[in-house]
Amino acid sequence: MTAAPPSSPAESTGASAGVSIELLADRLRRAGDVAARHDVDLLLITPGTDLRYLLGIGGESHERLTCLVLPATGHRAPPALVVPKLEAPGLAGVPLDELGIEVVTWADGEDPHLLVSDLAGGPTRLAVADAMPAAHVLGLRDALPEAAQALAGPVLRELRMRKDAAEVAELRAAGAAIDRVHARMGEFLTPGHTEAQVGADIAAAIVAEGHTSAAFVIVGSGPNGASPHHDVSDREIAPGDVVVIDIGGPLPSGYFSDCTRTYAVGAEPAASVREAYAVLRAAQERSVAAVRPGATAESIDAAAREPIADAGLGDRFIHRTGHGIGLDVHEEPYIVAGNAIALEPGMAFSVEPGVYFAGEWGARIEDIVVVTEEGGERLNNRSHDLVVL
Amino acid sequence: MTAAPPSSPAESTGASAGVSIELLADRLRRAGDVAARHDVDLLLITPGTDLRYLLGIGGESHERLTCLVLPATGHRAPPALVVPKLEAPGLAGVPLDELGIEVVTWADGEDPHLLVSDLAGGPTRLAVADAMPAAHVLGLRDALPEAAQALAGPVLRELRMRKDAAEVAELRAAGAAIDRVHARMGEFLTPGHTEAQVGADIAAAIVAEGHTSAAFVIVGSGPNGASPHHDVSDREIAPGDVVVIDIGGPLPSGYFSDCTRTYAVGAEPAASVREAYAVLRAAQERSVAAVRPGATAESIDAAAREPIADAGLGDRFIHRTGHGIGLDVHEEPYIVAGNAIALEPGMAFSVEPGVYFAGEWGARIEDIVVVTEEGGERLNNRSHDLVVL
Repeated sequence: MTAAPPSSPAESTGASAGVSIELLADRLRRAGDVAARHDVDLLLITPGTDLRYLLGIGGESHERLTCLVLPATGHRAPPALVVPKLEAPGLAGVPLDELGIEVVTWADGEDPHLLVSDLAGGPTRLAVADAMPAAHVLGLRDALPEAAQALAGPVLRELRMRKDAAEVAELRAAGAAIDRVHARMGEFLTPGHTEAQVGADIAAAIVAEGHTSAAFVIVGSGPNGASPHHDVSDREIAPGDVVVIDIGGPLPSGYFSDCTRTYAVGAEPAASVREAYAVLRAAQERSVAAVRPGATAESIDAAAREPIADAGLGDRFIHRTGHGIGLDVHEEPYIVAGNAIALEPGMAFSVEPGVYFAGEWGARIEDIVVVTEEGGERLNNRSHDLVVL
Repeated sequence: MTAAPPSSPAESTGASAGVSIELLADRLRRAGDVAARHDVDLLLITPGTDLRYLLGIGGESHERLTCLVLPATGHRAPPALVVPKLEAPGLAGVPLDELGIEVVTWADGEDPHLLVSDLAGGPTRLAVADAMPAAHVLGLRDALPEAAQALAGPVLRELRMRKDAAEVAELRAAGAAIDRVHARMGEFLTPGHTEAQVGADIAAAIVAEGHTSAAFVIVGSGPNGASPHHDVSDREIAPGDVVVIDIGGPLPSGYFSDCTRTYAVGAEPAASVREAYAVLRAAQERSVAAVRPGATAESIDAAAREPIADAGLGDRFIHRTGHGIGLDVHEEPYIVAGNAIALEPGMAFSVEPGVYFAGEWGARIEDIVVVTEEGGERLNNRSHDLVVL
């Protein structure tokens, strides 16, 4: 191929992914305002979810530089999109004119980092996208040796972690889509099938239910359920297994689903399993119930952790309670001890406590929850019981 | 989900992807040697194709740092893999002990960049993976303020652009797999179907023929064929269309296919089309025939460009002739004017001249070619004619 491949199907669209020009203009304006407050002169945003958030396109992430140069409010530089000449025709559907963004093309053989330097117009404080590849970070350092480089993440997360109504609607649709996959789990989770076979069937269902890809499929059966990291393996599902199923992917809009349920296959689980699961279920319930504007992220973590510790299982819950979700499957706010950020309406994150018994079994329950004016709304609504299939 | 999603299906394996321990040990040793020649002390390699090349694993690319710390030959630091505690169990299948690589884990709340600083043991010259995200580049800059940062690409490309026999075998298998998709083009390229429908059918066939994903599918019909960047659109294929089909993806080993053919749908093309295509076909043939050890990359570009220019079509061929291919679909060596590198056995790249008539039609012919002791071996072998379907 001559041109650059999209880095993922979700990023292959040249269109603005259903986001209105007014909304994009508002995001760009607010990004400029926050940048100014952070003492940043220019935001430099290469392809990825930050670019998708600001322009409605993923852009092509490849060896050639594509970069949005977005000045802080009050800075002299003009907003511009630096893009390889070969890629410029693909921007036809993007409302750059309406957004006041100049297109600056470069041809093979030119150093595009020098174009960014020209746009900056002198020593400056740059904030680069957290995902920008080192090849461009160091290329910009060499082209702008007097400039200070910081990360754009602290600026953009102030916007991205507060979802607007359209974003919440996308997350709600993603939650419903992955719930439909969990609703069909009896078709997939069959004794005698390997985790890998079950995972392949689930992956096909994730796509069939409206995702552009199955970004992750964890099928942790029996002892494999005790490793939160587990993916799939050649282990055969056996009657009596407890199985952790943690699955999700992006919708065409780019917004992610992520939902975990734990199942018992073919038989009622042992009393010890049912007892520990009941503790976990109550902990997840209590954590979701604690979600409301003003509560801190760490208080939601504590609300999950305390009942598990009180039951003597504290050392079985070996990870943070959750992570924010949106265009990235992991983003701010993280629901973890030490994160004192106060929740606000529109923040969306997972609440996913788990208990893990090495060599034996594990369980996890995960919903995406969005903060509302009154409390929290679960975006996943399948039964939270240890369903026997 | 609690853990990190794989960045692509091809990267989700924890196994060493069929690469022997001996081969990995040899790659690590040679990387250390080349680093020393480049005045680099430590290579810092985060998840991506460089890590896959050196360790046989893609690793998890996410907000948590995973990083191979590989000292140059003669440097005091021990080889180490810095990895989140949560991910360590996933390394069970990786022969780190046999390769003499220490595992250094870190827990949420620690700064992993400081662990890299401890391993470095003092001021040093670092080379970071070209794809390392800015979040880690700047994190390492802050943790090692006295260190110089350069890119690891110039070191690793000396290894990666010279494919060994096992790599050539993988590229050959990838070429055969994508040839099988082109062989079935008559099933997909149907008048009345949109480019998007044709593309979806091709994508399914790419996976069915052994790729882990359809990384790119270009269906450029009629005037859309004149844009090398074109992806797919809602344009309906009509009888008489000339259609550029540029497709490929990775095998489970991670090695890519990439092959373009141009088809005529339902009718013999016009004489003017046939004449221009004949020029293109001869140019591609001549360029492939020029491949041999010692020839420069730019001479292969010139061999394609000259006959097209001689026919008065020089301004219709608007891109470089080709790109290297391997674990990345675009890598060194680039077949472009100004690249004086001398070809060596084991180098693999595309030879893909094209001619583009804006608003009317376009054509491109692309094979992957690997340099042998005697000349060049085409890895794509479907007819180079303008096949009428």
